[in-house]
Amino acid sequence: MSPDPLLLSLNTATVRKQWTLAQAIEGCARHGIRGIAPWRDKLAEMGVKKAAKAIQANGLTVTGLCRGGFFIAKDWLDDNRRAIEEAHALRAQCLVLVVGGLPAGSKDLIGAREQVTDCMSKILPEARKAGIPLAIEPLHPMQAAERACINTLEQALDVCDALGDGIGVAVDVYHVWWDPKLEQQIRRAGKKRVLAYHICDWLVPTRDLLNDRGMMGDGVIDLARIRSWVEGAGYSGFHEVEIFSELDWWQRDPDEVLKTCKARFLKAS
Amino acid sequence: MSPDPLLLSLNTATVRKQWTLAQAIEGCARHGIRGIAPWRDKLAEMGVKKAAKAIQANGLTVTGLCRGGFFIAKDWLDDNRRAIEEAHALRAQCLVLVVGGLPAGSKDLIGAREQVTDCMSKILPEARKAGIPLAIEPLHPMQAAERACINTLEQALDVCDALGDGIGVAVDVYHVWWDPKLEQQIRRAGKKRVLAYHICDWLVPTRDLLNDRGMMGDGVIDLARIRSWVEGAGYSGFHEVEIFSELDWWQRDPDEVLKTCKARFLKAS
Repeated sequence: MSPDPLLLSLNTATVRKQWTLAQAIEGCARHGIRGIAPWRDKLAEMGVKKAAKAIQANGLTVTGLCRGGFFIAKDWLDDNRRAIEEAHALRAQCLVLVVGGLPAGSKDLIGAREQVTDCMSKILPEARKAGIPLAIEPLHPMQAAERACINTLEQALDVCDALGDGIGVAVDVYHVWWDPKLEQQIRRAGKKRVLAYHICDWLVPTRDLLNDRGMMGDGVIDLARIRSWVEGAGYSGFHEVEIFSELDWWQRDPDEVLKTCKARFLKAS
Repeated sequence: MSPDPLLLSLNTATVRKQWTLAQAIEGCARHGIRGIAPWRDKLAEMGVKKAAKAIQANGLTVTGLCRGGFFIAKDWLDDNRRAIEEAHALRAQCLVLVVGGLPAGSKDLIGAREQVTDCMSKILPEARKAGIPLAIEPLHPMQAAERACINTLEQALDVCDALGDGIGVAVDVYHVWWDPKLEQQIRRAGKKRVLAYHICDWLVPTRDLLNDRGMMGDGVIDLARIRSWVEGAGYSGFHEVEIFSELDWWQRDPDEVLKTCKARFLKAS
């Protein structure tokens, strides 16, 4: 069975080379896409108030704000506080956390993991107060050094277990599709802790470790199967398309990209 | 404490662009490297008998034969039988299994995993008879589609548990360094099932998903820590340097590569 077309959301990274946030909001409205997940650099360009107003005027749901985290940065505390405020202003369903990798010059992955957990425990009370769930996004192990030292759903859920309410996970198929424990851990996460569901595809071959994601249906991820697990766990929220694609989709006409996202969402997700 | 210099082994992939197997055997002897792990394409070029003779004449230990596996190939059974025979002829300490990824056109990762487990159960009795331990090498999740659908040590050990004696794992730091359960699973594997230990480094940035491995010390893997876990589990065998490096080490003078392997083994492993 195809997913509900009303549950499609656009992560604006998918058209970040072509469009401003204002253009992406208009694009979603024009194509009948009901969810949007903005990135904070584009949000800052547009201005939070103006963006919140445009998003509401177009009746869009903000399925996540990308991103908080990067707890190895010097200004992590202020930056994450601002991110929580922005998420609140946008009425975002969650703040997505890309936790950061190894500090420069360090090889201490265990230490980095302890550090990011500690930082999350420090911002969690403020996120709870603002009513913004924090969504840890486990990133593919190939991004462990540079972007996120949380690399499996199991590891992310262990952190959630330790930190209590108000924190869950963003399940991005690109990062977790390979995991032999994926079904088990999605079940463990359950309805309460699957805060976001991101889709795209894994290309064969993959030409770049960061920016060579594929459109749904163009790769080898069994999206229907993973969706059945996520829905089986009770998730009934949006399906957010997030495609970093230097060599392909960022080169195309953004209206064509959105049309393709819509079509593939129904046909191949 | 530095590792024992007598425990260095050269996986010949490290100089595969520069040297034949005969040259690699001579190179090891010349540089005082006591272990070698040949690849079967080069072994076929040289001839198994001639290679076995040269290896014995130089007093080298074959720390593994690369590779069996690729159970999705049509001729997997014959090919793996031949691999076991060759490993026996070389008195190899194990046959390394790179199990293969998804069959062409398939997205069924779970099915692929069942298939490779089934294939391993079929060759295991012959491997036992030949006295050749089979070493499952879990490959980095970024190689799940194309090279191996066994991607964590935990998953590999679950397979070992199911199949019984005569099968264990090859722990290659490049593939497993990111794993939050690495220490725990190395302990679980124990002396009996850690059949090989492969070293190199993870470069930041990594420019290619397959052939951009680093020399020990040039990347972010905490090699001393992982070595302490492996030794703590009771492993006292060779440390095999395996570096696929299109852009760097395959471009260099192979004698320089071997000298660097020796120096870095003592200084940074």
